[in-house]
Amino acid sequence: MSIQETIQQMAHAAKKAARTMANLSTTAKNNALLKMADALMAQKDYIQQENQKDLVAGRAKGLSAAMLDRLELSDKVMAAMVKGLQEVIALPDPVGEISEMNKQPSGITVGRMRIPLGVIGMIYESRPNVTVDAASLCLKAGNAILLRGGSEAINSNLALAKVLQEALASENIDAAAIQVIPMADREAVNVMLTLEEQIDLIIPRGGEGLIRFVAENSRIPVLKHYKGVCHVFVDESADHGMAVDIVMNGKVQRPGVCNALEALLVHKNEAALFLPKVWAALKDAGVELRGCKRAGAILPEIKAALPTDWGMEFLDLILAVKVVDDMEAAMDHIVQYGSLHTEVIITNNYAHSQRFLREVDASAVMVNASTRFSDGGQFGLGSEIGISTTKLHAYGPMGLKELTTKKFIVYGDGQVRS
Amino acid sequence: MSIQETIQQMAHAAKKAARTMANLSTTAKNNALLKMADALMAQKDYIQQENQKDLVAGRAKGLSAAMLDRLELSDKVMAAMVKGLQEVIALPDPVGEISEMNKQPSGITVGRMRIPLGVIGMIYESRPNVTVDAASLCLKAGNAILLRGGSEAINSNLALAKVLQEALASENIDAAAIQVIPMADREAVNVMLTLEEQIDLIIPRGGEGLIRFVAENSRIPVLKHYKGVCHVFVDESADHGMAVDIVMNGKVQRPGVCNALEALLVHKNEAALFLPKVWAALKDAGVELRGCKRAGAILPEIKAALPTDWGMEFLDLILAVKVVDDMEAAMDHIVQYGSLHTEVIITNNYAHSQRFLREVDASAVMVNASTRFSDGGQFGLGSEIGISTTKLHAYGPMGLKELTTKKFIVYGDGQVRS
Repeated sequence: MSIQETIQQMAHAAKKAARTMANLSTTAKNNALLKMADALMAQKDYIQQENQKDLVAGRAKGLSAAMLDRLELSDKVMAAMVKGLQEVIALPDPVGEISEMNKQPSGITVGRMRIPLGVIGMIYESRPNVTVDAASLCLKAGNAILLRGGSEAINSNLALAKVLQEALASENIDAAAIQVIPMADREAVNVMLTLEEQIDLIIPRGGEGLIRFVAENSRIPVLKHYKGVCHVFVDESADHGMAVDIVMNGKVQRPGVCNALEALLVHKNEAALFLPKVWAALKDAGVELRGCKRAGAILPEIKAALPTDWGMEFLDLILAVKVVDDMEAAMDHIVQYGSLHTEVIITNNYAHSQRFLREVDASAVMVNASTRFSDGGQFGLGSEIGISTTKLHAYGPMGLKELTTKKFIVYGDGQVRS
Repeated sequence: MSIQETIQQMAHAAKKAARTMANLSTTAKNNALLKMADALMAQKDYIQQENQKDLVAGRAKGLSAAMLDRLELSDKVMAAMVKGLQEVIALPDPVGEISEMNKQPSGITVGRMRIPLGVIGMIYESRPNVTVDAASLCLKAGNAILLRGGSEAINSNLALAKVLQEALASENIDAAAIQVIPMADREAVNVMLTLEEQIDLIIPRGGEGLIRFVAENSRIPVLKHYKGVCHVFVDESADHGMAVDIVMNGKVQRPGVCNALEALLVHKNEAALFLPKVWAALKDAGVELRGCKRAGAILPEIKAALPTDWGMEFLDLILAVKVVDDMEAAMDHIVQYGSLHTEVIITNNYAHSQRFLREVDASAVMVNASTRFSDGGQFGLGSEIGISTTKLHAYGPMGLKELTTKKFIVYGDGQVRS
């Protein structure tokens, strides 16, 4: 069978499974998730053996230590996957929620019922734990999922899928609800992206290259974010101690993630006093600061920012800093260089806080908090399947609800339209 | 300037305008809508003169009477556009609504704020009144709109846009918030569909050919429906009088629209009694019935349905009819031949009504009501900008809310992530 035929067959099976998934009770879904958690523990040795094959191949291919680390299904990662499953069990089931029921002038009563999206296509890179995290969220929201992980994790992903499918089957649930595409060829992705009749949503997770490829080639709607270029604006009235803490947390705690801080904007009236304080802390933590001219005049020892540093996602211990005239200038900078991810103002000015929240266009806008909070778990969504910086359907971290939609339901007693 | 440059320039201007639109007060938006209504009346003669050019050209091109009728901006159509504007003024402003505010364990308070989508690209065919309807809804939801109507309505659309833009300018609103693309070439659509950095959403309205073209060529998310193949299932317990009324209303009241009825499914235990009743009424109204074998055995004078009649959008006084064993068989038929638009059960069985509502996958699922209610106005959305049978973002009729999205807002007092 050709790659095309295989993927089409899998997608058809997923669509068929999705129909039954949509009507599973919450108890049935939770029981399946529980079985999945038990099975992961019971078959840990098998999974780790298969994972070992990927690690050996990865070392032979010369993958970096960081890549190999992401690839490894250590006892700790296995335990985290099981904990993740338990958390998904504890989340409320979004499916079936009825809202906005109103009687209309015609006499019909109209409302909306939350339903699963159907079939989710997930395209991701190295971490095999995504296989379990994504599958569990999709299952809880009543969807089927077609997973396409990185070629370097293929044995791990197939082993995980096998264990999850056995758990589904033992609960009399169609195992096609969770499928991992078994071939490593890029061609498999190309085929997936054309199956708009079978797949309702594509979620790509990985580097900007992968995500652009998916976005440009998909006929299916894609929820994606390319990058996170998050700013903190230290306003005239800001508490300097608070601002230093928030900048340090944003830049240093985990610099390689999309909600890390990439650029600092400082009100001109605060710069002379604030910049030396924040620079002292940043320097201690090994952060390289790249400043505009005015910042350089205050901190002569820092590097001058290049034009390309504005809007740059460093993902490293590097921070761009710019002195701005006022909040207006800060917001203009964010319009020009932001990535619609997360933007923060540090202020004690009430009117500024309200205006910044209203006017800044980003999936998360914050007052006096760290950009690092931009996360499904921290936002109270329970768990996160990804983040969207496109505005359709979901904007920001996506949880269970974002894996559902709503249909209209109508109760009549014989009404016809006049 | 090339077509490409012109469209790009317009899209850039629209994006700039969208930034200011997002922050307009409800009063400012309503004042602008009021001005637009006044201007349409004040400049009716000019608009109708320009419309006359399109009508003359249309006649010369040999457009059908129905096409010419749709194209005409008669006094009645002008009055309807003004009334539409007044209705949009009366709708609540969705922008700024804050929901789901909750304090999280970290101490931050997280909620969601409703915001405009940004720039809407509307691609549509003949009716020039869509220009005003769509522009007014987009404006009320705080968006900018780029309109691309049919080439046969180009003078009418440009005249309407000119009048609307003057109204905006007189209220100190950026006139680029409402723009009609001035060239008739198909190339203009091709360019529009690539401008994913400037345009947030494409809504195509028109025939299936146009919509497929847009869906297949757009890099921008598209909200669309191809067709409406709506079914009514007459269950075992159905009230026959009610069922006849609902079938007649669905098929006869306005057969050329997407929420018209296209196929009737009848429970085998009702068929012998019900089919003669409904056929008597349909025959009187000039409807051609095309039946399955079992229907033909009861009504020997009707035509036999061809395999292609199942799932066919007749848009005419033709109805397919099939006798089914039970609700399960009816739902299977709907899965196979439905278009995710509107599906109806006529029943007096409580359990069946609940199961049909829950399990049938369509943007609108109804009990004991006519398919013809599937409409933004009838559903209480106020006005309708289109209908979506894709599940992302909107499923079913789309009103003002569907022209918005939500961002996360966070109130902190110095929290950092540990």
